[in-house]
Amino acid sequence: MSRFLSTRFAGLEAYTPGEQPQDMQYIKLNTNESPYPPSPEVFAACNAEQVSKLQLYPDPEGKRLRQKLATLYGVEMENVFLSNGSDDILNFAFMAFCDQTHGAYFPEISYGFYPVYADLYQVPATQIPLQEDFTIQYTDFCQKDGMVVIANPNAPTGLELTQEEIEQIIKSNPDHVVVIDEAYVDFGGTSCIPLVKKYDNLLVVQTFSKSRSMAGARLGFAIASKEIIADLNKIKYSTNPYNINRLTLAIGEAAIDSNDYYMENCQKIAQTRTKTIEALRAMGFTVLDSVANFIFAKTNQMNGEALYTGLKKKGVLVRHFNKEKIQDYVRITIGTEEQMEIFLQKVKELLQEEGKA
Amino acid sequence: MSRFLSTRFAGLEAYTPGEQPQDMQYIKLNTNESPYPPSPEVFAACNAEQVSKLQLYPDPEGKRLRQKLATLYGVEMENVFLSNGSDDILNFAFMAFCDQTHGAYFPEISYGFYPVYADLYQVPATQIPLQEDFTIQYTDFCQKDGMVVIANPNAPTGLELTQEEIEQIIKSNPDHVVVIDEAYVDFGGTSCIPLVKKYDNLLVVQTFSKSRSMAGARLGFAIASKEIIADLNKIKYSTNPYNINRLTLAIGEAAIDSNDYYMENCQKIAQTRTKTIEALRAMGFTVLDSVANFIFAKTNQMNGEALYTGLKKKGVLVRHFNKEKIQDYVRITIGTEEQMEIFLQKVKELLQEEGKA
Repeated sequence: MSRFLSTRFAGLEAYTPGEQPQDMQYIKLNTNESPYPPSPEVFAACNAEQVSKLQLYPDPEGKRLRQKLATLYGVEMENVFLSNGSDDILNFAFMAFCDQTHGAYFPEISYGFYPVYADLYQVPATQIPLQEDFTIQYTDFCQKDGMVVIANPNAPTGLELTQEEIEQIIKSNPDHVVVIDEAYVDFGGTSCIPLVKKYDNLLVVQTFSKSRSMAGARLGFAIASKEIIADLNKIKYSTNPYNINRLTLAIGEAAIDSNDYYMENCQKIAQTRTKTIEALRAMGFTVLDSVANFIFAKTNQMNGEALYTGLKKKGVLVRHFNKEKIQDYVRITIGTEEQMEIFLQKVKELLQEEGKA
Repeated sequence: MSRFLSTRFAGLEAYTPGEQPQDMQYIKLNTNESPYPPSPEVFAACNAEQVSKLQLYPDPEGKRLRQKLATLYGVEMENVFLSNGSDDILNFAFMAFCDQTHGAYFPEISYGFYPVYADLYQVPATQIPLQEDFTIQYTDFCQKDGMVVIANPNAPTGLELTQEEIEQIIKSNPDHVVVIDEAYVDFGGTSCIPLVKKYDNLLVVQTFSKSRSMAGARLGFAIASKEIIADLNKIKYSTNPYNINRLTLAIGEAAIDSNDYYMENCQKIAQTRTKTIEALRAMGFTVLDSVANFIFAKTNQMNGEALYTGLKKKGVLVRHFNKEKIQDYVRITIGTEEQMEIFLQKVKELLQEEGKA
């Protein structure tokens, strides 16, 4: 910290992203990336003609891509907002819709970035505990006096609220924005995008990073009432209007044009998830019923940190959160069938070694 | 504006970027882009192998590119910060180093985004008038009680302060950050990066958008003391850690590897600038002595808006600012020799038509 930093950031603890090793080869099951490459249409869209235009600014409105998303999700273009990944949109939402007198409510166990945004903007944050079984009690989020933020499916549990429960939350908070973070919805969850037409306080956030194999391209989108989208644009145009690059816009369009390819990959991942959960349970693991592209699991034979460290030594990266209530668990991203067979083999070896020790 | 937006943004006026027409063909001299395409090395770097890795997050630290920039500019990697365009870095600087009690000082005529950032974060802003001849009086920026922000060369004038004058400003403000925005320095200005070793309060901001033909790829960088860079990283990791995409990192490295190509383009642009200034002056225009890739010019025969509108009708886009003190002028980006010949021809036609009217 320099002596120039505003004192309001003295206690700020930034978000810690999962490890992104650049050198060594791991089976990388730690940051919920897709194991499948982009579609052939995306490869074709990233061509020399696009590169030859890189000296020109991109379309700051991203109109063509917004129109494609609007058509796919049955809304108007003015209901669609684009930004540099869904983190960027969540950041804007905390900035726009919260302040020192309008707080935020989110689950105690959820995406670790929510409390960072709250700290950054000095927003009073209330972290509501999950139930014993890691589910969210939806009534805990009804009739709040601030913005509600819920990841659905939730991370790192993979559990989801039903659309009816989400609707109750939205309906009971008519004067506050309800953010539903659907980063993982395409792997078996139910999107609440259809509710945008009914409720002007609903902000649905999605991303191309997970189901559309574009974590490296940085593209997130939001769907909400035109007024909420206008607010997000106001913040974007007051910080960094050209925050999505030209190539990302082009390949984002190509990804929507090849939506079937990605939805098939999601189904494959869901099948692999089912097999992996069964195999882990057969080894005595406790595994939550995830509808996301990751699973949350623990064993009685070793704690979460030992499991993480042991797997890392064997070349498999998973994610461990050193946080009360979940430190026994690890979060495992679902990779390809082959990757998960190796993962299961390494887990088996680790348990055997532990049994002998 | 929705009924949910925090009241602190009620009066916020977002930045208005220059027009980015997506359909019609213009000779585009309005947003200071390079007329030259990226280097052959950049074309080669944007390949199928890179696309095949897009499902993975980029390196949030951008280590390889930071190392290349550090080597090029003779600093350490820890002195280099990367972000999504230089706007993003300016945004972080206003957020990090200003607050309601630590204001900002910048020239009244300069980059139009500075007052937007100040408004966004409720930072008391003092806009200091230029001299009659549009130069900055450097002593006006000495011994201030807040952050100083100077575009050098300044926009839209193209005029620069000497390194000695900049050093006086830095030296006389030891307890506040001095931001030198060098977006246009490569076209004939003098960078103050060497001063980073002497002063821990200097933050130099540059971009790949202009001299490196990458406006479409969104890449900016800053060079400063390690402590200031650490602060900027803290803000980045508290908003959007992965804000530069994988392809941009790869082509950014390729651009530094082919630095000579870009510096030759800058020289070509400087030569075209000289010819264009001479031709306009021969037509009776007043043109400031720009060292940037744009010129600021006016004629007695019509006002700035009429000149902008007339040129647009003839297929040439320039930029007009509807702002007191500069509304007689237009800002003209320097394009290729061929583009500037057409531009001059259209100006000549316009003046002739105006003379007959």
